[in-house]
Amino acid sequence: MDPRIREHAGVIADHSTGIEAGDMVVVSAPPEAEDLVVALFEVIGDRNATPAYMGKSERADRAFMRAADAEELETPAHTKALYEELDVLIRVRAPRNATETSDVDPAATAARQRVGQPVQEVALSKRWCLTQFPTAASAQLAEMSSEAYEQFVWDAVNLDWEAQYEFQENMVEPLDDAAEVRIVSGENTDVSMSIDGMVAVNDDARHNLPGGEVFTAPVPGSVEGEVYFDKPVYRQGREVTDARLVFEDGEVIEHGAGKNEAVLTEILETDASVRRLGELGIGMNRAIDRFTYNMLFDEKMGDTVHMAVGNAYDETVGEDREGNDSAAHVDMIVDMTTDSRIELDGEIVQRDGTFAFEEEFEA
Amino acid sequence: MDPRIREHAGVIADHSTGIEAGDMVVVSAPPEAEDLVVALFEVIGDRNATPAYMGKSERADRAFMRAADAEELETPAHTKALYEELDVLIRVRAPRNATETSDVDPAATAARQRVGQPVQEVALSKRWCLTQFPTAASAQLAEMSSEAYEQFVWDAVNLDWEAQYEFQENMVEPLDDAAEVRIVSGENTDVSMSIDGMVAVNDDARHNLPGGEVFTAPVPGSVEGEVYFDKPVYRQGREVTDARLVFEDGEVIEHGAGKNEAVLTEILETDASVRRLGELGIGMNRAIDRFTYNMLFDEKMGDTVHMAVGNAYDETVGEDREGNDSAAHVDMIVDMTTDSRIELDGEIVQRDGTFAFEEEFEA
Repeated sequence: MDPRIREHAGVIADHSTGIEAGDMVVVSAPPEAEDLVVALFEVIGDRNATPAYMGKSERADRAFMRAADAEELETPAHTKALYEELDVLIRVRAPRNATETSDVDPAATAARQRVGQPVQEVALSKRWCLTQFPTAASAQLAEMSSEAYEQFVWDAVNLDWEAQYEFQENMVEPLDDAAEVRIVSGENTDVSMSIDGMVAVNDDARHNLPGGEVFTAPVPGSVEGEVYFDKPVYRQGREVTDARLVFEDGEVIEHGAGKNEAVLTEILETDASVRRLGELGIGMNRAIDRFTYNMLFDEKMGDTVHMAVGNAYDETVGEDREGNDSAAHVDMIVDMTTDSRIELDGEIVQRDGTFAFEEEFEA
Repeated sequence: MDPRIREHAGVIADHSTGIEAGDMVVVSAPPEAEDLVVALFEVIGDRNATPAYMGKSERADRAFMRAADAEELETPAHTKALYEELDVLIRVRAPRNATETSDVDPAATAARQRVGQPVQEVALSKRWCLTQFPTAASAQLAEMSSEAYEQFVWDAVNLDWEAQYEFQENMVEPLDDAAEVRIVSGENTDVSMSIDGMVAVNDDARHNLPGGEVFTAPVPGSVEGEVYFDKPVYRQGREVTDARLVFEDGEVIEHGAGKNEAVLTEILETDASVRRLGELGIGMNRAIDRFTYNMLFDEKMGDTVHMAVGNAYDETVGEDREGNDSAAHVDMIVDMTTDSRIELDGEIVQRDGTFAFEEEFEA
């Protein structure tokens, strides 16, 4: 087995989820990621914890969703019971074909997401980690060779997470203290929002591996302006390009896309609260040096900002603040490399991808 | 997808487990069997039931068992909770390497089986089905080409189960009525036992797919004599050949084997009740026309008898009778082709593989 896989399993067990003796651990992974499942079972055994292995098959999910009556979908009570009894949930992504669910009705996917929400909520209340195992399909999506892509993934994952945590702390305090954020990029993005009383979180790869962002939640109702998302969103195997959202009083009042606008429309019809922003994130993982059309990596890139419509993470919602509950959480990315700035209460904290606390920054 | 796979999924859903709208269904399968998982998810969707997919990896299990401290193993509470909430459990076997766990300490395997028993008990209280997906490893074990083995599996599985049920009923009544069974084969097998008050079950592929046997439980303490098992037992990837058991007052008092006797010894040390027979079965599925070193198939062969040390199935234990509770249930096969007979209360009901109710039988 490639030694980087055992290293990856070690980061998951020791850094991200802190597996200990007695823990009930669930590893959820597709067939392609069996090597990582093996490495994880080894480390779980070594810690005297107890593993269970949930499979994941996009092909099977597609077959189910095409065959099922969307009106009759039920919350998977058996999976919910499993999740309620676990201590640690490790989810591995490893697509064999990134467009496997491209011929599933987006309404069916949205319906399944809705009935799955109670399960998702249980998962989020536990120690959980979402990570990636490199596959040929992901490499192809990134327009990379398999070998180069493997190196890219393991460089981003098998990082010195203590050093990365310190680096990111530089942005946590300013965000925590700020009341207003403004994001400007090029001609088409100029959006403002209040983050007053919200909590900025340092993502040092506890839940996402790779981690590498600082994120918070906007005050619902405060978002104003428009955003052009430079990078395509992959959703149910379909590429939504040139997405554009216009906000008024915190709600999306207008949206558009170059390709697959219908997918974006479906997303924005998931439920009543999906039209609000649930997250604002600043990417800070510079081991991720290119877009790979994979949100788990793209949103962590050093010179990007991302916003998610839908659900706000509880940890980012201040004690006396209102959050946003939605079955969906869809991240979209703004490139901040050129002609861009992030302002906190009117002060520029990042310009063209360089942070104010960095030497290269020109005030 | 091979149409025989969809047919297989249909037999599982409609005949074996009777999947209905609202059922919570778990499919447990290794990566090699993904095609059958896809076909099952499709039929589960079509019936408006709710699927979950448990993975199974012999490689991961091996890694876990080699790394874990056998003394510290715990009952997987999370898996138990999943099982408690399900209506239907479908288990698929599909090895990539039949000897994958051959370097795991048999004591570790036995310990894991022990802590897993509460989970197993929940599973057995549900609608469940164990089946096989053809793989190159299983074909190799059977000394067959992959294509011939696929045909063999699907011939045995995609059978006319109503006709098969009727055929097997011919043996259910005699076994149900009988008090004493005697099995004689060649020079080395001559064993008697009481089945008085026990229940004979017609296995028409509700729990095992393929099915094709009639089985019951011996009265504990009644087994006397010796048995030579003609066919090797595959256990944890190791082949136990020429196994021999000697019974006195219902207990194994002596055992031996040609190869891997230590594996047999480990089995017989699982717990206090594993030294008793839990099952006597008569194979009646003639679509299975050869040994493939796979108990799920071998024990159903027309001219064989099998006995299992360890656990007795509740359904075979008469209301006022004592059963046998053990964490193990290990089937072993006696070839009844030549120089063999089954006697019920002194009357021959099968000679050299031919049943008394068949035309070819010579009284």
